[in-house]
Amino acid sequence: MSLIVQKYGGTSVGSVDRIREVAKKVIEYRQQGHDMVIVVSAMSGETNRLIDLAKQLNDHPRGRELDVLLSTGEQVTIALLSMTLQQMGMPAVSYTGSQVRILTDNTHNKARIMEIDDGKIGDDLKQGKVVVVAGFQGCDDNGNITTLGRGGSDTTAVALAAALKADECQIYTDVDGVYTTDPRVVPEARRLDHITFEEMLEMASLGAKVLQIRSVEFASKYNVPLRVLSSFTEGGGTLIAAEDPSMEQALISGIAFNRDEAKLTILGVPDHPGVASKILGPIAAENIEVDMIIQNTGYDATTDFTFTVHRNDFKSALTILQKTAEALGAREVTGDEHIAKISVVGVGMRSHAGIASSMFDALANENINIEMISTSEIKISVVVDEKYLELGVRSLHKAFELEQDPAA
Amino acid sequence: MSLIVQKYGGTSVGSVDRIREVAKKVIEYRQQGHDMVIVVSAMSGETNRLIDLAKQLNDHPRGRELDVLLSTGEQVTIALLSMTLQQMGMPAVSYTGSQVRILTDNTHNKARIMEIDDGKIGDDLKQGKVVVVAGFQGCDDNGNITTLGRGGSDTTAVALAAALKADECQIYTDVDGVYTTDPRVVPEARRLDHITFEEMLEMASLGAKVLQIRSVEFASKYNVPLRVLSSFTEGGGTLIAAEDPSMEQALISGIAFNRDEAKLTILGVPDHPGVASKILGPIAAENIEVDMIIQNTGYDATTDFTFTVHRNDFKSALTILQKTAEALGAREVTGDEHIAKISVVGVGMRSHAGIASSMFDALANENINIEMISTSEIKISVVVDEKYLELGVRSLHKAFELEQDPAA
Repeated sequence: MSLIVQKYGGTSVGSVDRIREVAKKVIEYRQQGHDMVIVVSAMSGETNRLIDLAKQLNDHPRGRELDVLLSTGEQVTIALLSMTLQQMGMPAVSYTGSQVRILTDNTHNKARIMEIDDGKIGDDLKQGKVVVVAGFQGCDDNGNITTLGRGGSDTTAVALAAALKADECQIYTDVDGVYTTDPRVVPEARRLDHITFEEMLEMASLGAKVLQIRSVEFASKYNVPLRVLSSFTEGGGTLIAAEDPSMEQALISGIAFNRDEAKLTILGVPDHPGVASKILGPIAAENIEVDMIIQNTGYDATTDFTFTVHRNDFKSALTILQKTAEALGAREVTGDEHIAKISVVGVGMRSHAGIASSMFDALANENINIEMISTSEIKISVVVDEKYLELGVRSLHKAFELEQDPAA
Repeated sequence: MSLIVQKYGGTSVGSVDRIREVAKKVIEYRQQGHDMVIVVSAMSGETNRLIDLAKQLNDHPRGRELDVLLSTGEQVTIALLSMTLQQMGMPAVSYTGSQVRILTDNTHNKARIMEIDDGKIGDDLKQGKVVVVAGFQGCDDNGNITTLGRGGSDTTAVALAAALKADECQIYTDVDGVYTTDPRVVPEARRLDHITFEEMLEMASLGAKVLQIRSVEFASKYNVPLRVLSSFTEGGGTLIAAEDPSMEQALISGIAFNRDEAKLTILGVPDHPGVASKILGPIAAENIEVDMIIQNTGYDATTDFTFTVHRNDFKSALTILQKTAEALGAREVTGDEHIAKISVVGVGMRSHAGIASSMFDALANENINIEMISTSEIKISVVVDEKYLELGVRSLHKAFELEQDPAA
């Protein structure tokens, strides 16, 4: 007997039939003796319907009143799911974020959870009730309703699991787990039974959009075992947990990729200390996020400096960089929107040498030119021409034998 | 400069265009220097949409979770109206019932307001903000969301007006005031500029469905001047307030009528003390409400006893009464579903004799037979065959010259 927090997203509760299915699944778990806390999102389509209404009345709906509006979406779902459980004979009670009290800061539309009061929920669980909590929302010190931003329901679930010291936090979604890479690119991609928090953070930030990255950070910080699984099909999903030293780790867990970036280079910058900050300072001042950064020494007393930004920010970054180049007396500015980033991720990398050269070999065998390289403790990323993206991912997936279960 | 509480019902906020119209009207008042508190209902159709969803998942949606569900309807409206006011440059802030804190008892689905915290609203008004409050809802001692039952938004408005010591509580609806009688029956019916609380209570309980009777009771108890007016047309509406002895009162303010009742008679009951309670006790035990009651002495040592109930309760009341008749040794039980009640209402009655005989004369002139008579301090009601309803109302409206403005 354990305490399980389950989270069901918008499509999982998108109709009365889907809500009924969720209720059945919850009752199954409860009847196995588990204490159950359920976090739900707004029914799919509802949040957009509310935003559409708001936009008809206000050019830029935002802030406090938008949160009052949007929070009704989850409130409808908690009431409907609780009623359904009751109809099926299962005692249940619902709570909005304010009622639980999920205390957040007062940054409306993207608040951060500060503290969760576990009193009421604890009492209800002792009485055998299933507790249904509205995801995505909380309240600030003054009782104003706040929302955590899109996808915030995952964060609610993990934060509740941490506060209640749950044994597992299960995130139900429309995919049945985390894969070695995107199956649309590599049909042989394999579902991972487990993956570490660190690997998941690298996979997620690199574009494997299964889970909100904030919720994984939260789970890692409070060491809450997270399980991603499908609400539409059976199966154990993928367990995301802390690294277990007793387990044989796969060398590489997965291949992530991202085609949302663009590359900018400033060539022949007179090389003085502080030149990097002179280049990136004006970019940051415009709130443009920079991902990879590389600096090479040029052929004379100058340096070449390359970095990547989100493709949407490419044009503004280029304009800024051209001004900087003039000011610094640099030779030239170039840019490329047609790049892709491919990353191999795995904690096994820490204890095994030669991963990088295997990676570069595999790409070279396909005549794929590497334009940038960046490494961290558990990942190696390369930038290539975007036309090589699929070929690169497939060749790496094969080279590291990811289609084979390492336990088999 | 005064404090005005305005309440807009579901049709008044039924679309984004209607919400925009409400915002404009509110700003007009604010710009005249009034402090404004606005109470809104759910957009028309929304409550029914939510109940439909609930019914698909639970045979009898009710209690705590139904309130969590339904309260989202007004929460959407307060957010949309506040955003609209802000878009038009008017500072505004919204509150749910729980946020205000409108404390109620814990009778879910038909809670009663116990106490209102006027702190937050008072502060906002001082800062020049328009305060928008969700009608129909509150919370109990434990923070559970409660609703006041359909039409409860009127009660919220009046209760807020009382708590804030507002100068006037304006109820915007789809009619432009209280009429001398239903204009569909008497085209000459005239809108009343003012009417007393007592008269309004008699009019409302008799079937003039302009205002929730509870909100009029509340307004009367706390002496909050109430004004009913249309959100669709201009005009001063009808002011409902305490009787003003300095004002010349009309003899009769209006003619109310009701065709929802049925009449039951038990004939030839042996006349002993306590016989009335023996007859009505079993009826009350079945939660059937009795309206008019008349007892006559019969032609021997027996009595005849007649009363009216809601037409929906006629069959059950008849069955109960037949058993009672056997037990008491009464001669006969009769019933009539085809009756109508017509009432003349007016505080002027107190100081003027002869109203009753004018009423009976007017009906007699049309050959309308009176089946029952019941009187109170400010009203006289008669029961007639329902086929005479329209004729009766028209002849009384004319006899008391209600089509003429008494001030004119």
